[in-house]
Amino acid sequence: MPSISSKGRNMPPSPIRKLVPFAEAAKQRGTKVIHLNIGQPDIASPEVALDAIRHLDRTVIEYSHSAGYESYRKGLAAYYAQHGISVTPEEIIITNGGSEALLFGMMACFEPGDEVIIPEPFYANYNSFAMAAGVTVVPVRSTIQDGFALPAIEAFEALITKRTKGILICNPGNPTGYLYSKAELETLRDIVQRHDLFLFADEVYREFCYDGAQHVSAMTLEGIEQNVVLVDSVSKRYSMCGARVGAFITRNKELYAAALKFAQARLSPPTFGQIASEAALLTPASYFTAVVEEYVQRRDILVEGLNSIPGVFCPKPKGAFYCVAELPIDDSDRFCQWLLESFQLDGFTVMMAPATGFYAEPATGRKQVRLAYVLEKSLLQQAVAVLNAALAVYPGLVKGLETSSRATAH
Amino acid sequence: MPSISSKGRNMPPSPIRKLVPFAEAAKQRGTKVIHLNIGQPDIASPEVALDAIRHLDRTVIEYSHSAGYESYRKGLAAYYAQHGISVTPEEIIITNGGSEALLFGMMACFEPGDEVIIPEPFYANYNSFAMAAGVTVVPVRSTIQDGFALPAIEAFEALITKRTKGILICNPGNPTGYLYSKAELETLRDIVQRHDLFLFADEVYREFCYDGAQHVSAMTLEGIEQNVVLVDSVSKRYSMCGARVGAFITRNKELYAAALKFAQARLSPPTFGQIASEAALLTPASYFTAVVEEYVQRRDILVEGLNSIPGVFCPKPKGAFYCVAELPIDDSDRFCQWLLESFQLDGFTVMMAPATGFYAEPATGRKQVRLAYVLEKSLLQQAVAVLNAALAVYPGLVKGLETSSRATAH
Repeated sequence: MPSISSKGRNMPPSPIRKLVPFAEAAKQRGTKVIHLNIGQPDIASPEVALDAIRHLDRTVIEYSHSAGYESYRKGLAAYYAQHGISVTPEEIIITNGGSEALLFGMMACFEPGDEVIIPEPFYANYNSFAMAAGVTVVPVRSTIQDGFALPAIEAFEALITKRTKGILICNPGNPTGYLYSKAELETLRDIVQRHDLFLFADEVYREFCYDGAQHVSAMTLEGIEQNVVLVDSVSKRYSMCGARVGAFITRNKELYAAALKFAQARLSPPTFGQIASEAALLTPASYFTAVVEEYVQRRDILVEGLNSIPGVFCPKPKGAFYCVAELPIDDSDRFCQWLLESFQLDGFTVMMAPATGFYAEPATGRKQVRLAYVLEKSLLQQAVAVLNAALAVYPGLVKGLETSSRATAH
Repeated sequence: MPSISSKGRNMPPSPIRKLVPFAEAAKQRGTKVIHLNIGQPDIASPEVALDAIRHLDRTVIEYSHSAGYESYRKGLAAYYAQHGISVTPEEIIITNGGSEALLFGMMACFEPGDEVIIPEPFYANYNSFAMAAGVTVVPVRSTIQDGFALPAIEAFEALITKRTKGILICNPGNPTGYLYSKAELETLRDIVQRHDLFLFADEVYREFCYDGAQHVSAMTLEGIEQNVVLVDSVSKRYSMCGARVGAFITRNKELYAAALKFAQARLSPPTFGQIASEAALLTPASYFTAVVEEYVQRRDILVEGLNSIPGVFCPKPKGAFYCVAELPIDDSDRFCQWLLESFQLDGFTVMMAPATGFYAEPATGRKQVRLAYVLEKSLLQQAVAVLNAALAVYPGLVKGLETSSRATAH
């Protein structure tokens, strides 16, 4: 039997999905599992997108252009213009979700062995795409005590080597919900410019900014127009995760041409998904207003609920629909598994993503979990009640954390 | 401005799509371009698949399982059983087209620098996926004189080194249309077994076998159950290229687990495409009977037409819907471009794929082109007329080829 590759062996399992077998076992025992582990919203997709699919008038489901339908790219360019981002349809490649945009970018920009600095905790799958491209992820630590703000410029400078070729940010952030300010982005711009790096900006949660906060796109930063790669997706924007439609966007013509060759190799992005996504461009503004209002209410229930539990600390996110909480526990992998295997309250338990998978060094996230507030408010209230009760009896409880003592002051 | 990666620079442009700008210019001049360059059939997708999309009853377009919907994988396993291939739903990962199955396989099986032997001419994008994974493609030459039969076992043995980790075949073959016999597959099995290699079998044209020929799947070869990776796709089977739904299939549990981690990183295959593909499993047998009959007629018109042109030789394919023809020309890239730029007959010209892109060493395919007989018969007749007239006046004509003198005897 031939042996598999080291990439195949070393590729990390998804921290979001690895506990699925325990959740399935819990459900078979009759326990209701509240899924806060994955960013799969229960929000309805826009009617205008579903209608376009239901009124499909084609008889052959053909390939599209490798960069995606031109009409869709034109529509997207107009959408970006409305958000203060100036790009042309010829600077956009439609991809199989944001995932493929990240993969194309990693492959086209970086040599195996090159280093990319990523503020951590970060979206776990960045590790996977980096591994596929042979790229080394160099984490720069943001801390829960600071609410996951951008680390100081000195922290970045200290990590830069001859192999550093890029910085990757997620803004608003998954898993932290942190929204970078204009000043923070300008700090990043200065580092990128000084060391001539690529800046990958994953902005798939652009529409989800709260409390009046404004999103600033990396594409609007002056002086690094040739350095920025914008990663986008319709998955969260229109609650159409299954459409698998994203975008790779750059003004750098050489990079665009290289990424297009990767796109040609896989022929085309999905036709049905593009039809739905193009129609979704006509989603009325009222859809987003209602969705954002709903997420704010959900966030407040979850985050205030978490902070009311003794020993728990959770910064209040300004964007996306995740939060990272620190718990008075020995080990988040063990706690999350225990919740599924050994705990229920009124027939409910909670599934969360251990934060170990969101740090380059898993031990850093040992006391933290990521929660997605993508479910209806009553379930979030129930989830808080479950966690409150669970933390009263969990055998691996650890008291007197520095951050949790801070948390009680919030 | 940061420099792009060497992969980005060296990734080959698609030979199928690289002449697109010349075709667009021809169309703008009012010339009708007969597209024989790309395997995009004009055959209607099955009604049952389109109806499933039109009757979509979901309100949220969610992620599916990373391996694809279980119901679809169960249906696929039953489909394979009907074709004499015994696999379980747990041995199948649904992918973004056959393309992603190839990429997962290359990444999960091979180290950068490992060698994979591929009978050439071969599907051009194998080069691209190999380059993405850092794998070296080692071609073993099949010749047009032998109708592109499998090279002798000695030719494979001569190429095997310490870095050889796999063999990749396409059966029936793109671009040649060659269908491997059971004896040829058993030869491959012996080599694979002797050297403990992976055998990738791209069988996306399984349904398209002509003149009573039977397809033999690599999955039915005894003794190499742990070595075979089956690559599949609905693109050609149901004329649904744009659905972007394929499959990675292996009985090797370690390899499956590794490939699943790559699948988890990109979250899920497309939901709409899976809905259509699952419904397409109910396509009546009469659909395939009619389609195969149509392709046989198209093949006969194109291949007989080509062989009637002085100096042209085209073996008669037994499967898929492509053929490779040798022409009395100086350079197929130049000829294909000239057809689009400088030639028309009755307002028509023909777009073909230069075979240079289907060989590891482009010069080998300098006199050959790939043609896809995916258009209606009258257009194929028109295409033959265009090529006949073009070859009478093409400035780069070369006479007296050895193979073309053979061709006149066919």
